[in-house]
Amino acid sequence: MKHWRVDYDGPVANLYMDVDETAGLFEGYELKLNSYDLGVDIELADIVQRMRFEHPEVKVVVMRSAKEKVFCAGANIRMLGGAAHAHKVNFCKFTNETRNTFEAALADSGQNYICAVRGACAGGGYELALACNHIMLTDDSTSSVALPEVPLLAVLPGTGGLTRVTDKRKVRRDLADVFCSVEEGVKGKRALQWRLVDEVIANSKFDDTVAERAREFAAASSKPEVDRGIVLTPLSRQFSEDGVTYSTVEVSIDRTARRATITIAGPDTDTPADMDAFTTLGADAWMLRCARELDDAILHLRSNEDQIGLIAFQTQGDPEKVMAHEALLRSNADHWLANEVLQMWKRVLKRVDMTSRSLVALVEHGSCFAGPLAELLWAVDRSYMMLDAFDGDNRHLASITLSDGNFGLYPMGNDLTRLQTRFLGTPEQVDELRAQIGKPMEADEAEEMGLVTYAYDDIDWDDEVRLFMEERASFSPDAMTGMEANLRFAGPETMETRIFGRLTAWQNWIFQRPNAVGPDGALQRYGTGVRGEYNMQRV
Amino acid sequence: MKHWRVDYDGPVANLYMDVDETAGLFEGYELKLNSYDLGVDIELADIVQRMRFEHPEVKVVVMRSAKEKVFCAGANIRMLGGAAHAHKVNFCKFTNETRNTFEAALADSGQNYICAVRGACAGGGYELALACNHIMLTDDSTSSVALPEVPLLAVLPGTGGLTRVTDKRKVRRDLADVFCSVEEGVKGKRALQWRLVDEVIANSKFDDTVAERAREFAAASSKPEVDRGIVLTPLSRQFSEDGVTYSTVEVSIDRTARRATITIAGPDTDTPADMDAFTTLGADAWMLRCARELDDAILHLRSNEDQIGLIAFQTQGDPEKVMAHEALLRSNADHWLANEVLQMWKRVLKRVDMTSRSLVALVEHGSCFAGPLAELLWAVDRSYMMLDAFDGDNRHLASITLSDGNFGLYPMGNDLTRLQTRFLGTPEQVDELRAQIGKPMEADEAEEMGLVTYAYDDIDWDDEVRLFMEERASFSPDAMTGMEANLRFAGPETMETRIFGRLTAWQNWIFQRPNAVGPDGALQRYGTGVRGEYNMQRV
Repeated sequence: MKHWRVDYDGPVANLYMDVDETAGLFEGYELKLNSYDLGVDIELADIVQRMRFEHPEVKVVVMRSAKEKVFCAGANIRMLGGAAHAHKVNFCKFTNETRNTFEAALADSGQNYICAVRGACAGGGYELALACNHIMLTDDSTSSVALPEVPLLAVLPGTGGLTRVTDKRKVRRDLADVFCSVEEGVKGKRALQWRLVDEVIANSKFDDTVAERAREFAAASSKPEVDRGIVLTPLSRQFSEDGVTYSTVEVSIDRTARRATITIAGPDTDTPADMDAFTTLGADAWMLRCARELDDAILHLRSNEDQIGLIAFQTQGDPEKVMAHEALLRSNADHWLANEVLQMWKRVLKRVDMTSRSLVALVEHGSCFAGPLAELLWAVDRSYMMLDAFDGDNRHLASITLSDGNFGLYPMGNDLTRLQTRFLGTPEQVDELRAQIGKPMEADEAEEMGLVTYAYDDIDWDDEVRLFMEERASFSPDAMTGMEANLRFAGPETMETRIFGRLTAWQNWIFQRPNAVGPDGALQRYGTGVRGEYNMQRV
Repeated sequence: MKHWRVDYDGPVANLYMDVDETAGLFEGYELKLNSYDLGVDIELADIVQRMRFEHPEVKVVVMRSAKEKVFCAGANIRMLGGAAHAHKVNFCKFTNETRNTFEAALADSGQNYICAVRGACAGGGYELALACNHIMLTDDSTSSVALPEVPLLAVLPGTGGLTRVTDKRKVRRDLADVFCSVEEGVKGKRALQWRLVDEVIANSKFDDTVAERAREFAAASSKPEVDRGIVLTPLSRQFSEDGVTYSTVEVSIDRTARRATITIAGPDTDTPADMDAFTTLGADAWMLRCARELDDAILHLRSNEDQIGLIAFQTQGDPEKVMAHEALLRSNADHWLANEVLQMWKRVLKRVDMTSRSLVALVEHGSCFAGPLAELLWAVDRSYMMLDAFDGDNRHLASITLSDGNFGLYPMGNDLTRLQTRFLGTPEQVDELRAQIGKPMEADEAEEMGLVTYAYDDIDWDDEVRLFMEERASFSPDAMTGMEANLRFAGPETMETRIFGRLTAWQNWIFQRPNAVGPDGALQRYGTGVRGEYNMQRV
C-alpha cells in the first residue's frame, strides 16, 4: 500500500491516510495535502474489504490522517481538471461505492467506522468523514470541516456529500446552504451545533478521547468475537487482447459489436462439509472466489473498456451445486464468514445494478441460474431463455432455480429484493414464486412466472438475440445510461439510491457545463489565482 | 384558446387536444400531428386550473384528441432541436408541473382525469396519458402507445414518462426496457398485459365505452356537488423595464446585481364574513388573488429573466390579517372554494420550491410572514430577519406568526411539511413550534426556534444582506442549481420528487450531450432521414 497504513490493536483498527504525493495513478498532478485519485481509492476499497475478511476481530475502525496539519483535502483538483468526462463519472461512482462500504460494514457486520478529524477536512475529505458513523473534530484554529466545491470549483460535493448532509446528518437546510457556500468551512462548536460533527474536543485531549471512544464503541458492539480471519489471496486472472480469464469467470470482448460476455462457471466441486471446511478453503471456496472475480470483472469493464455498451451474462454449470454452496452459507448465516460471503454477494450484485452498460442475461442450456446467480436475471435490463431442446445441443435444458436467498439476502440499493422491485405492481407474484423455491423452472414456466423477458426455441433464438444486440448497439449510449438509471430502481428511494440517482445525475450535468469544465471554467483555473469565468444564465 | 377545446356535459368534461399547427409560440416549426410547444402547454395548464375554479361541477375530465388518426405526437421535435438548453429545461419543468396538476386534481378535489386514446399516442403524448389515472386504448391497427424518445431522438421521455412507467403504472422493468426501445410502441392486448393502459376496447365500441366509463367514474366520485364556480378574471399586471406590478405582488429587478425582489402585500381589507362573501369576491379575494399573482410572477421570472440568479422574498402588511384570511378558509376547508384556494397555495409554494434560482427571504420590519406567507421562509435557501428597532424605521417590528396551516396544509413534493423537512433531524422542534401557533415571534425568538437563518440588528443588517447577495451572485449558476436541487428535498422521495430530481437531472445531462444535441446528434438530424451520429463511449 502506498497511501494508507493500518495499525491493528485488538478490536480497534487505526486507519491512517498518508497519501504519497508522488504516486498518482496518472501523470500531471501531485497528490498534495492528502488529496486523492482513483489509485488512492482503490487501495481504500481493498482495505475496507480486507478488514472484513482478514480482520474480523476489528469492531471499530478509526479513520485518521497521518499528516501534520491536514486531514484530507478531497479529490485532487488537477486530476479532475485534466480528466475526461467519462473518467470523472467513473471515478465518482467508484468512490461513492467505496464510501457506502463504510456504512455497509456496520449494517452487515457490526464493524463501525469513526472519524477523528485533526486539521483541514475539506470536500472529499469531509465526505470520507460523512461516510463514517461518528465524527470527532479537534477544537483548534486549523481544524475544520468544509464542502468548498460550490464556491471554489463550481461543482458539487458529489461523493455523497450533499445527500449525507441532508439525509444522514440531517443538517437544517438553510445551515447546509451556508455550510456549502463557505470555502473555509466550519470549526469548533458551530460544527457541533449544526450537526456536522458529533463531538468537538480540545486538542490536548483529542487523542485520549478518540482512543476512549473507540474502546467504548468496541465494547458496545454486537459483533461476535472472532479470533482469526482468512486471507484474501491474489485473484487468479489473465488478461488477453479480447478479455480476461479468471478461475470461475470468463470475460470475452467483441469490440466490433461493442459487447462483452461474462460467463460464470458454477462450482466444480462439492459443497464444503461445514463452515470449518469452508474456512479452511477460505478465498478458494467457490462462493467467495466467484464473488470476488465477478466484482473485479465488472470494475475492469467499467474502467478500461468504455466502448463496450452491452454486457451479456451467461452461466454454465450445475444449478444444484450452486444451490448447495449457497445453502451451506445460508444455514450458517450466524457464522461470521458465511455472513461476510453472503454480504459480499449483496454488494457485488449492487455493483452490477449500478453499472451503466446495457445488461442482458442469456439463459442457455447447460446454465446454472440458481440462487445468487439467479439474481443476475433481475439485475439485467432484459433476459432471453432457451426454450426446449436445441438441435445438436446436448447440455442440460436451461432452467432457473430460486432459493430462499432470492427473497431477502441480496437487497438492492432501494432496500427491496430484486423480485420485489420487479413485481412492484403485482406483489402476489412474489408470493407465488416462494412456492417454487428449489424447483428448477424451464423456459415456458419461467416466462409464465415473469422471471425472464423472452423464451425462444431453436428456430428463433439466434435471430432474436442477435437482433436485440444489434439494436442495442445502435442506440445513443448516453440515452441508455439515462434510461437505465431510471428504469432499474422502481419504488422507494434510500440515501444510497439518492446518491447515485439524484446527486450523481446533477453532478454529471455540471461536469458537462463550461462554468465548471470549460477552458475558463473553475476546474481549469483552479490554482491560477484567477477565478472561473461564468456564464450567468440560470438553467 | 388556440389548441384545446372543452365540451362541458354536467359532471363530465371532454377535453379535446386540437393543436393549431400554424400557431407555434416561436418561428421555425409547425405543430403537426398534435405535437406541442410551451404555448400549447400554457393553455393546458390554464384549462386545468380553470376546471377547478370555474367548473367545480366537473368530476371527470376525459382527455382526447380532435384529430382523426393521431392522439398526440408529443413535444415538437423541431422546436426542441432549435431551442437553447435553458429553454428545453424550463419547458420540461413547466410541462412536468402541469402533468402533476392532473393527479393533484384527483387528490385535492376528487376531479379525475381519464384518457381516451385513439390513434398514435407517442412520447409526450403518452406522458399526457400517463398523467391521467385511467387509460383507455382503441384496439385497432393505428392506435398505440409509445415512448420512442430513446431510439428515435437519443433523449429520455422526460415529462415524467420513465418515472410513471415504473412507479405509477408499475410496469415490470424488463418490459419497460423493451417498451422504451421500440419506436412503434405497443398496441392492443399487449399494452394491457404490460400495464401500459387500463382498458383496450374495439374501435366500434370505443366512444360508447368511454362515455360509460366517464359516467361510472363520475357516479363513484366523492367530489361534493357544486352548482357554480367562480370566474378567474384576468390578472391585473403591468410590465415595466425593471419589473412587474400586480395588485398584491411587486417584482422589481436589479439587472446589474442579477437579482429580483418579490414583495407581497398582505390583505388591505378585512376578512370576508363567510364563504358566501368570499365566493362573491371570487378572484378578487386576497387569498386567491395573491396566490395567482405570485404564481404568475414566478413563471415570468423563470421564463423571461434567465440572467436573474437570486430571488428575494419580502412581505409588507398586517400579519394578523393574513392569519385571519387564511383562518376563514381553514375553518371552512370542507367548502369547495376554500379547499381549492388552499390547494392552490400548496401548488404555488411547490412551484417556488422547484424554482432553480437561489431564494432568500428578508424578514423586514413591517412584514407579514404569517400562515401561508410564512411557508416562504422555509421554501427559500436561507433567510435574514431584522432584529430590534432600526433607526428611523417606524414600521412594526419584524415577526413571524405560525398558523395551523403550517403543520399540514401545504406539504412539499416529498409529502412532508416544510417544517418537517427543515427539522428532519430534530422533529421535537416541530412539536415545540406547535405551541407557538398564533403568537408573533420576533427575531431573537424566531432565530432561537430555528425559523430563520440569521437575525441582524440595525448595525449589521445592510452589510450582511449585501455581502450574501454579492457572494451568491458570484457563484456558478449551474453549481447553485445542482446544490439547491439536492439540499431542498431532504428525506423521503415521492413520484413527484423523483421526476424533478432524478429523471430531470438525467435528461438535463443528456440535453448537454452531443449525441442528442450536437450538430450531428439525433435531435438535429430528426426528419432528415439520416440517423444521429453517436460517440459510442459509455459514461
